[in-house]
Amino acid sequence: MAEFFNVLPPDEARALLLSYLTRPIETEIVATRQALGRVTAQPVRAPHALPTFRRSTMDGYAVRANDTHGASETLPALLGAVGEVGMGRAADVVLRPGEAALVHTGGMIPDTADAVVQVEHTQRVSGAGGAPFPYEIEVLRPVAAGQNVIQIGEDVAAGADVLAAGRRLRPQDLGGLMALGLTSVAVARRPRVAILATGDEVVAPDATPGPGQVRDINTYTIAAQVRAAGGLPQPRGIIPDDAAALHVAAAAALAESDMVVITAGSSVSARDMTATVIAALGVPGVLLHGVATRPGKPTIVGAAAGKPVLGLPGNPVSALVQFDMFGVPALYHLQGLVGEPPRNRVWARLAANVPSASGREDYVPARLEASDGGPLAVPVFGKSNLIYTLVGADGLIVVPLNRAGLMAGDQVEVRLF
Amino acid sequence: MAEFFNVLPPDEARALLLSYLTRPIETEIVATRQALGRVTAQPVRAPHALPTFRRSTMDGYAVRANDTHGASETLPALLGAVGEVGMGRAADVVLRPGEAALVHTGGMIPDTADAVVQVEHTQRVSGAGGAPFPYEIEVLRPVAAGQNVIQIGEDVAAGADVLAAGRRLRPQDLGGLMALGLTSVAVARRPRVAILATGDEVVAPDATPGPGQVRDINTYTIAAQVRAAGGLPQPRGIIPDDAAALHVAAAAALAESDMVVITAGSSVSARDMTATVIAALGVPGVLLHGVATRPGKPTIVGAAAGKPVLGLPGNPVSALVQFDMFGVPALYHLQGLVGEPPRNRVWARLAANVPSASGREDYVPARLEASDGGPLAVPVFGKSNLIYTLVGADGLIVVPLNRAGLMAGDQVEVRLF
Repeated sequence: MAEFFNVLPPDEARALLLSYLTRPIETEIVATRQALGRVTAQPVRAPHALPTFRRSTMDGYAVRANDTHGASETLPALLGAVGEVGMGRAADVVLRPGEAALVHTGGMIPDTADAVVQVEHTQRVSGAGGAPFPYEIEVLRPVAAGQNVIQIGEDVAAGADVLAAGRRLRPQDLGGLMALGLTSVAVARRPRVAILATGDEVVAPDATPGPGQVRDINTYTIAAQVRAAGGLPQPRGIIPDDAAALHVAAAAALAESDMVVITAGSSVSARDMTATVIAALGVPGVLLHGVATRPGKPTIVGAAAGKPVLGLPGNPVSALVQFDMFGVPALYHLQGLVGEPPRNRVWARLAANVPSASGREDYVPARLEASDGGPLAVPVFGKSNLIYTLVGADGLIVVPLNRAGLMAGDQVEVRLF
Repeated sequence: MAEFFNVLPPDEARALLLSYLTRPIETEIVATRQALGRVTAQPVRAPHALPTFRRSTMDGYAVRANDTHGASETLPALLGAVGEVGMGRAADVVLRPGEAALVHTGGMIPDTADAVVQVEHTQRVSGAGGAPFPYEIEVLRPVAAGQNVIQIGEDVAAGADVLAAGRRLRPQDLGGLMALGLTSVAVARRPRVAILATGDEVVAPDATPGPGQVRDINTYTIAAQVRAAGGLPQPRGIIPDDAAALHVAAAAALAESDMVVITAGSSVSARDMTATVIAALGVPGVLLHGVATRPGKPTIVGAAAGKPVLGLPGNPVSALVQFDMFGVPALYHLQGLVGEPPRNRVWARLAANVPSASGREDYVPARLEASDGGPLAVPVFGKSNLIYTLVGADGLIVVPLNRAGLMAGDQVEVRLF
């Protein structure tokens, strides 16, 4: 397989992969209340303005602003309060010059008013507390036209593009849709991700491993990553280390899903078998056999039928990190996401030197600790392929491609995992 | 309700709320594969060591390290390769001094070996490519005892605490559990959060609002926030602005859920009604009627029967921000989370001055833009209670309590929403 062994930097490798994918996948209509985290498939336009009526931002009196001109504590404007606009009611009070209407926060403003005086800037001068309208009020401060009023369409104009296509929906986005009566929304279908574990040493988690055997970890870590990125994991079990069996399983997975992930056995021969199988799945097959990262260098990046096909190293840390590097961006790309996938990261001060090699992007597990000088990233050294190294870490320090290590005290990016 | 109108800074207000809650709620056993994002209810101990056998980290030859002492390219050590340890098989090859066994990455090491020479540091000197054992190899570099070997228990010792109680489970944590055969895990039950919308102006999203009416937004934004924080939203509909009706609805909600959230109408009278209802729900009732933040000052923070009861301002931006401030931490607290709830935040350079008032924590919607000097936070000014202000923002700039505004060029925290 030597002809495929071209090792690319991770950004270039990712861009190459995405360039071979068919995007976005099909659209489906889902209830807005179920759409958190989904990616919009089409731009959403406002069917009407928001708000649909002029609203008060204060408890107070709707007035004609002119009537308050020059009002002050010492020389208040005297107005007649002629009625109240109830919450949720049409403002059917008609104000003549010199008249005001009691309004509540969020309530509608009469057509004949153009501003609201907040109640704290008024005082009643006739009628007891509960007296019926009309009664007289003094306005102690002037208001300008439009003051304390939200105009029709001030939030959203009718026909405005309120959400672009390719947007991952957040709680406020669902709220914005509901405000416009859009109780369903067109989103990308969840991509199905087939996960195939290989390796004669691998047994299911509920089995008791014999000598030389280990339980399958990768199916479950990758399934969780798929779910977090909006996909549907489809675990396809443990495939024997046999090229024919793996080819049959991978071809079926490719036909029935939108992405195929094979976690290879850890040996060179197992990886070569994975590469051979991916090469035979279709065009272009293997794009890259190797990425300039540690861990995860022997990752196989491929595509067939416009779908990503990844051959991940068998060791669970590499598999997790490399799925995050390639699988997660590919999942968002398939969903049509515009921009970078969401990724939690913090900047922290490095607590110890981290050796590396230039020309390779390194990911070093780290714990975050609070310190007077802000967050501190404490590297967790150890053999890189042990799952509990990542369990004990808060994230990964990124050592950039062009750096031969980092120094204690450096500000470093920590990707939270 | 003036007696309740003590306004606290947000951190103190949050601590006060949490101090009244019964935690954690009940435990349930879930399948590990379904446990992403759940919070562990008990410490998890390793039922056995990991790995359970000595594993090779390389493709190569298992040897007695002593036999390679002083080996070099010019003076290689000559060893007899007497067998192979197949993947997933017991290493039943017995090595006498001067003998080696072919092993693969992740494979088991014979009891009689104590190191692995990687294949690149050996060469065959007898037998053709596919010849059967025994054959002779030259070892071109010495190895130390333990080199290229993962020892039994090197990842995890038998009986070790591998996960503390109160941990939110990530993909690698699920992998760590599976590696130990722990296919189910004890986690906190998902807290049920009753969401009551009030306000005579509020109609359901699928209704066509009449004059003065608006659609319910808060039920859906808060439900999405609840889901993201591991809770189960229980929307209880729109309750009329009537103290008796609201009391009945809130008391039933309190009995049937673990948290009650009431989004009040926006007027002072509606908020006062909410406070009265919360006060009557039980002890301590209303803890705070007001928080030193903008938006969200009129938030009512309360508790009854060890459960949080929140009265949020009706305007959707305040409700969303305040649920994030109080509801989300309370949800994690109920689940027994140790430490801070996960929160996405970035530091960015402020693009424009942001006025504020000292003694109040302000949240200003902002867009993030890339720039040569790192991320730039561009404040989105406007009336604070418009939902599309948040739809158009990437997050909120936090103006600390003790600052009377921020200056363009300042490094600021942006909470991603």
